[in-house]
Parts: sequence; C-alpha cells; structure tokens
Amino acid sequence: MSIAIIAPNKEVNNWISVFKTIDNQVDVEVYPNITKPEKVDVAVVWLHPHGSLMDFPNLKLICSMGSGVDHIIADPELPKGIPITRIVDPRLTYSMTNYVIMGILNYHRQIFRYIKYKEEKIWDMSDPEIDITVGVMGVGQLGGDVLDKLSALGIPAIGYGNSPKSNFKHSYYYGSQLNDFLSKVNVLVCLLPLTEKTEGRLNMELFEKCTPGTYLINVARGKHLVEEDLIKGLDKEYLSGAMLDVYRQEPLPKEHPFWDHPKIMMTPHIACITMYQAAAPQIMENYHNLKNKLPFKNQVNSSQGY
Amino acid sequence: MSIAIIAPNKEVNNWISVFKTIDNQVDVEVYPNITKPEKVDVAVVWLHPHGSLMDFPNLKLICSMGSGVDHIIADPELPKGIPITRIVDPRLTYSMTNYVIMGILNYHRQIFRYIKYKEEKIWDMSDPEIDITVGVMGVGQLGGDVLDKLSALGIPAIGYGNSPKSNFKHSYYYGSQLNDFLSKVNVLVCLLPLTEKTEGRLNMELFEKCTPGTYLINVARGKHLVEEDLIKGLDKEYLSGAMLDVYRQEPLPKEHPFWDHPKIMMTPHIACITMYQAAAPQIMENYHNLKNKLPFKNQVNSSQGY
Repeated sequence: MSIAIIAPNKEVNNWISVFKTIDNQVDVEVYPNITKPEKVDVAVVWLHPHGSLMDFPNLKLICSMGSGVDHIIADPELPKGIPITRIVDPRLTYSMTNYVIMGILNYHRQIFRYIKYKEEKIWDMSDPEIDITVGVMGVGQLGGDVLDKLSALGIPAIGYGNSPKSNFKHSYYYGSQLNDFLSKVNVLVCLLPLTEKTEGRLNMELFEKCTPGTYLINVARGKHLVEEDLIKGLDKEYLSGAMLDVYRQEPLPKEHPFWDHPKIMMTPHIACITMYQAAAPQIMENYHNLKNKLPFKNQVNSSQGY
Repeated sequence: MSIAIIAPNKEVNNWISVFKTIDNQVDVEVYPNITKPEKVDVAVVWLHPHGSLMDFPNLKLICSMGSGVDHIIADPELPKGIPITRIVDPRLTYSMTNYVIMGILNYHRQIFRYIKYKEEKIWDMSDPEIDITVGVMGVGQLGGDVLDKLSALGIPAIGYGNSPKSNFKHSYYYGSQLNDFLSKVNVLVCLLPLTEKTEGRLNMELFEKCTPGTYLINVARGKHLVEEDLIKGLDKEYLSGAMLDVYRQEPLPKEHPFWDHPKIMMTPHIACITMYQAAAPQIMENYHNLKNKLPFKNQVNSSQGY
C-alpha cells in the first residue's frame, strides 16, 4: 500500500513531511520516479499528465490536492469507477470569500475612481456609491459562503445554479431562469464548478442578457470565460468592468490584451491557494479511511463533475 | 415656532422639501436670511458660524444634519443647556462599514501590490495574503457595526474605547489598556468621536506602540490625526500604509504631502454621506416631539461630547 504524488511543477516536500508526521509508516513516491506502481493504491494529484493514472493497476482512490477536480475529470484516460476526493478547507473558503467581497466592495465604493483622483489631486465628493445587487453563479461550498457573508453585510445578493435546491437560505434561480437572475443583479460573481456544461458559460450571449453595466468577477476557472467576448462585452458596455483571478493560459502571456485593458483588474490566480497544512491531513484521513474501509471525506459526485 | 437651517455651503433645498412633505405647516428659514429669530425654536445645523446660535432667544433644540456633533460642541458661544440631536441612519452605517471593510480587505489581499503587478505585467503568486487582526478604536454605533460584520466574515477583530463596557459582544479594551490593544492588532481603524480627549489621538506616541507595520484607516475626523506624525510613522515603518477619508483641512490643499505619498490611499470624505432622504425625517420627528413634549430621538450626551 503506497501513495503516489503526481503534481509536476508543484513543490511537494511540504506535503510529504505532513504525511510522514501523521503516519511515519506511510510509503510515498513522487512522479515520475515511481518504482513500484503495482503497490500504489492512492494517487494524490494536481494537473497530472493525462494517462499517467493508467500506470497503477491497483489504484483505489484519487485525491485532488485542491478544491477543484476538473483537472482530473478532464483526463480522457482516467481509470473508470475510482472514487475522487477534493480538499475542503475552511481557510480556503475564508480566502476566496474575502477576495470576492474585496472585489465587490471595490466596485461598490469605486476604489479605481478614487485612485485616479489621488493621482490627479481631484477632490470630488459626488456620487460616492454605486448601488449593488450581487448575483453568485455556483452556490456550492464557496458560492454559498459568499452569499452568507454578503447577507451578513446587508448587501443584496442572489444565487444561480444548475439544478433546483430545496431549503436554500438565499434567493435562488436555476437552469432556464438565467435571464430573470441576470436582470436582477449588477455584479456577477462566477464560482461555478468547471464541467462540460459550464465551460465557456461567460460568453457574449450571457453578457447581452446582463443588466447594462454589470461588473464581472471570475474566480472559478479561466475556461468559464470566453476571453475575447469579455473584451467585446466591455466595448459594447454590456459590462462596466471585470476583476479576474483565473485565465485560459496561466501564467497569462505578456502579449494578452487583458494586461493593458483599463476596465479589467487582474490578480495572478491568488484568490485562494490551498495550504498544504490544511490540505495534506485531509488526504491522510482518506488514506486511513481506505485502509479501514470507512467512507471517504469530500468525495465528489463524478457524474456531475464536481 | 419655526426651524432655522444654518448650513453655509450645503445644498438645503432637498431638506426643506422633505420637511414640507412631512408637515406642510412647518415654517423654515435659512441662515443668513432669518427674518424672525425670536420665533426659531429648532436650529438645524451643519458647520454653523460660531456664535450664530446666540441669535435665537427661544431656541429649544439643536439638530445636527449628520452623525457627528463635534462641529456644534466646538462652538465657544454655544447656548448652554439646549438638547442636541444627531442623525442615526442605517444607510449611513451600511456605507461606513462597507468602506472600512473595503479598506481592510484591500490591505489583507494587497490590492495595491496587484495593481502594480498589472501595470508591470508581473505574474507572482507568492504570499497572496497578509494575516490580519483588526483593532477598532471607538465602538459606538459605527465601530460596533464594523466589529459585528468583521466577526461575521470570520476576521479577528477587537475594540477599544474610553470607558469600560459591560456585556459587550466583542473583545474590548479601554483606557490604559491601549498598549495591550495595539500589540494585538495590525490593522487599526479609527471611528472615535471627536472630543477634546480624542483630538490628535493618532500621533507619534501611539504609532510607536503599534505592532510594527500596522495599517491605519481613519474614517472619523481629520482632527484625530496628527498629519505630520503619519508621514513620520510611515517613514520609520511603525506603519506600513494608511487609508484616509478625512483631513484637517477639506478639501485637502493641492500642496498637501498626502497626495503624492505612495503609502497613503485617499478618498475625498465620502466614506459616508448623510442622505437627506433618511436624515430630514428624523429632524422632523424631533421637531414634532418638541411640539408634543415627547423625548427626543438620538439626543447626544453633551457632557461626553457625543
């Protein structure tokens, strides 16, 4: 019984040392130097090379090292029927929500306007606020937390998701109610999971339906956004601005038009970063659950892709 | 029985129209064109010329047009023993808290760092957060709301005030516990009332006691801050930055060093602006309470200056 870590370009020594602290008997190997593939029953992965999971004939569990599993499900050679777990980290939720609320308040209280005023030494007290209603697309762990906290701040906010929900705490729209949802909000936050259905969801067709001047915040995945449509949507003033943390290609190439766009604020995929201190113990817990034939924590429903 | 509005440089027609909508019998005159000073029993004031309230021999109530009354109490020729009321506007609290939380989150999530990265096309994912504990000086209506909402966001926050408080919901320090309070926080928000005791409170002596690198947010009054000490405190790195909404002189003169200071973010006294729609009815309510010998709403304790 061993763990294989398959996370090229990721610093994994910190993870291994947490694994060993929790269980000094644990056998860990790191891709591509895996000497005994037949012993591997748990694969711990982040952006693994597609097909690489086929090397393990006795694989019983695939653990994402982050909150998303889209990078796993996207593998056309993913071994079938193996449970997949993800990280649920309260600290990760804290970071994500704080980032999103920062983005919302910076639009509401017009920070970029006042930064310009400071540069130009302008004193102008007129119209200090933009009234906002926030729409959150994707109401899972992260989107739900954003709605809870906006509600605590007294900021009007509603949610939108794929399927109906019973007993949801907040105003909620789903499926074909998208037009209705978009007409009620002027700040749109994307926290959708990335699936075949949601890829490219933030596109011109959607922007045309938005309340004119809607402010977009995308903190989910780069692939949710059709990037050239964002530029067009801003030009046509369907949108008044955007704050982005994720991109189709990361790091974002220097020649990408977002860098110089005056209406786009950007951060380098830092809205939330999984901390190994919180995440590694969750993986060890599932490793022990496998050993002891207990149910896994934070197993994803792979038919829905999240 | 009449109302005198004494608010030079303020647009008051909107206020008068709300007064008349509520009571079309009400008699309102606007300073300096007050023809029957002996009839005035209610003065509605904002930055009134000192001494001007002595013109009304039958004055029975002074209403501030905003949440502060320091501009009234600062008048050395203030008629003695006349009740003073202020505006308490939930919308005003909403605005102030949103502004303060924006300032806190922009420090926590380093918006100014990422703005620079965007300008310079830098992709750097390292250290995306600064861990924060927020200290709020002044825990009245506004400071209390900031503490409540930080707590809802899960952001550690503690309060500091002049006197002991029983049954306060949050960790609270007072009086001589200032050093202890300052040692526990790295974001300091000033929401103190302006009194003789608190004027100039944000000075070098206090900055020296702060956790090194503390971030300062002043949204109370310009006179709370010794402005030259802020520059020194930033130079000596007692403070890492500041967000200011209020200044000793407003509008801030073009030659003021704050404009060009890279560590100071500034807004032109817009954190909260009293909206006449919410404020004018509160003044009319107290006008009617005077008529009907009922207690006043939001009367200040003038011995404490707030």
